[in-house]
Amino acid sequence: MQTDVLALAKALISKDSVTPDDAGCQAMMAQILKPLGFDIEMLPFEDTLNMWARRNHNGPLLCFAGHTDVVPAGPLDKWHTPPFKPVEKEGYLYGRGAADMKGSLAAMLSAVHNFVSKHPQHKGSIAFLITSDEEGLFINGTTRVIDTLEARNEKIDWCIVGEPSSTELLGDVVKNGRRGSLTGHLQVKGIQGHVAYPHLARNPVHQAAPALAELASTTWDQGNEFFPPTSFQISNLSAGTGAGNVIPGEMQIQFNFRFSTEVTDQQLIERTRAILDKHQLEYSLDWTFNGQPFLTDSGELVSATTAAIETICARKTQLSTAGGTSDGRFIAPTGAQVIELGPVNATIHKVNECVKIDDLYLLAKTYEAILENLLC
Amino acid sequence: MQTDVLALAKALISKDSVTPDDAGCQAMMAQILKPLGFDIEMLPFEDTLNMWARRNHNGPLLCFAGHTDVVPAGPLDKWHTPPFKPVEKEGYLYGRGAADMKGSLAAMLSAVHNFVSKHPQHKGSIAFLITSDEEGLFINGTTRVIDTLEARNEKIDWCIVGEPSSTELLGDVVKNGRRGSLTGHLQVKGIQGHVAYPHLARNPVHQAAPALAELASTTWDQGNEFFPPTSFQISNLSAGTGAGNVIPGEMQIQFNFRFSTEVTDQQLIERTRAILDKHQLEYSLDWTFNGQPFLTDSGELVSATTAAIETICARKTQLSTAGGTSDGRFIAPTGAQVIELGPVNATIHKVNECVKIDDLYLLAKTYEAILENLLC
Repeated sequence: MQTDVLALAKALISKDSVTPDDAGCQAMMAQILKPLGFDIEMLPFEDTLNMWARRNHNGPLLCFAGHTDVVPAGPLDKWHTPPFKPVEKEGYLYGRGAADMKGSLAAMLSAVHNFVSKHPQHKGSIAFLITSDEEGLFINGTTRVIDTLEARNEKIDWCIVGEPSSTELLGDVVKNGRRGSLTGHLQVKGIQGHVAYPHLARNPVHQAAPALAELASTTWDQGNEFFPPTSFQISNLSAGTGAGNVIPGEMQIQFNFRFSTEVTDQQLIERTRAILDKHQLEYSLDWTFNGQPFLTDSGELVSATTAAIETICARKTQLSTAGGTSDGRFIAPTGAQVIELGPVNATIHKVNECVKIDDLYLLAKTYEAILENLLC
Repeated sequence: MQTDVLALAKALISKDSVTPDDAGCQAMMAQILKPLGFDIEMLPFEDTLNMWARRNHNGPLLCFAGHTDVVPAGPLDKWHTPPFKPVEKEGYLYGRGAADMKGSLAAMLSAVHNFVSKHPQHKGSIAFLITSDEEGLFINGTTRVIDTLEARNEKIDWCIVGEPSSTELLGDVVKNGRRGSLTGHLQVKGIQGHVAYPHLARNPVHQAAPALAELASTTWDQGNEFFPPTSFQISNLSAGTGAGNVIPGEMQIQFNFRFSTEVTDQQLIERTRAILDKHQLEYSLDWTFNGQPFLTDSGELVSATTAAIETICARKTQLSTAGGTSDGRFIAPTGAQVIELGPVNATIHKVNECVKIDDLYLLAKTYEAILENLLC
């Protein structure tokens, strides 16, 4: 069985697993984990394949979490090499998923292989929670595996998500939480009419503009030690018939909050409504709730991780809660300590995605050191 | 030669003259005018047919102005009768152009026929300025005929445009001017980015919102005795990639001024720029100038028209400068007195366009009374 990090990463990149297609990645991972003493449980839900693999049944449980799916390749003519053919070039491994996150999966497998070989009698348990819909709708993946585990009272104590957390050098940043995310879908209603007869119409753009200005300039909180201040961003808006002489009858606005632990989603909803009401808008407003903020402050997992990075990578890591959402939001609410540690994220979701080959080996060693810090 | 108003209107409606196609309407008009002593001059420009017909060469010159083109029929299944087949029903004549403005053309022809028959030695001159692109691009029609007349120093003293000015009863409203129209095409520039990293982006919607609020709430002028206050209306705007997690990189806004004689287009441009600059927007702004405001205050034409309406329609007319643009904007700058008088405009540009048959006869009599008031 091949357990070299680079070989594993190449094998995974070769599989065209555009979300939510697993394309055989999890079967390949299972083939490596089974001989190491893992019980393999495949948990398919709808179009998504999930795997729960666990070694031992005693606590504490350290879980590696990740996804085998990748985002689409994007414009093929902008790739210097075929996206699903792993290519080594000048110290980097190129291919879709190299950094997000097949490189991490390879490093996890290699780390666990080495750790179990050296410490077959380690304390506690090791698990893998792998999904194929992290890049997609994220409704049939990690969240449903967690439901399954919760239903049988199986608890994760420590969870390492392989998301590419590093910004310039491997391990320079570890995510120990994420902001919450809440999306608003606002429709402001007016009365359509001819621009030559404004008294017979009501322009929703004119009515909404001061309200949007106030929403955009509002300080929602000051953030705290772990979180930056809550931010509000309008992502899409439109109004108008296309004709230059027609006052639009309605305006569509989509906006998103990334919020800290200093406010709740309910408070944001109430404060948004208060501003819209103050400006006397006629509107409808729907919300999509994308996730609560979560935070893994101090504790064994953070200590074990920062120590491992200091030992293996010879640098101090920075804890951060910035950035987009991850499946950590589904795991943290169970009470697990959750951190995210993975390669440099500069090329993720872009063409010519790549990872430094040395970093793959460094990442495997760091994961192994965390295992040693926690389970020896 | 048939000179009955209703018969003439039906003959014109039967011709499918969707802008800029004249479809033989002007030739038919010429056939009526020629025997009445009019010199006929066809002035085709590009896709547009124009006719300048004049009786006598001495002043003053009273000109009837109008267009033979109509807007498209729209959804045929919503018409109760075929749009280009004139149908009489319950006292109304149905068909595309019945009110805008083939009914007016028929009334003008009938009025002139009767007037010239009764007063072959009338003073001054009578003319028809007819185009086929009023409903379209209005670049090869009235404006080019006026250029031709100006080039040979041929001046219109009084001009009656047949636009459907009436709102509920024939002659209740006469347009004696129009506001100017100026359209702005604004692009506000920002920096695109991920909503999770707002410090790396610059949201053009957030930057533009207070500026748009100020533009929408600005008092541009107070209007005057003849014009309502200048109005600003946003007609179209859009921003966003469609994705909910992307801060847009730019925002497009289209807006329109309808302006009184209390401001100039240059002042509006400067004041708009001052507001955008004050809010420190990075933007580009292009303008489409649609027409200067014009006004025919008191004078022989207004007096002759209001007197004619009082005599024939037994009502006091209301002078108004409200409403959309018309070809009057091209004629007024030559120094001509210009008014617009035509049928009730309730159904224009809609399906099942119609005109009250009695109003066609009343309109012809009113036009004839104006001729008598001015040229006898």
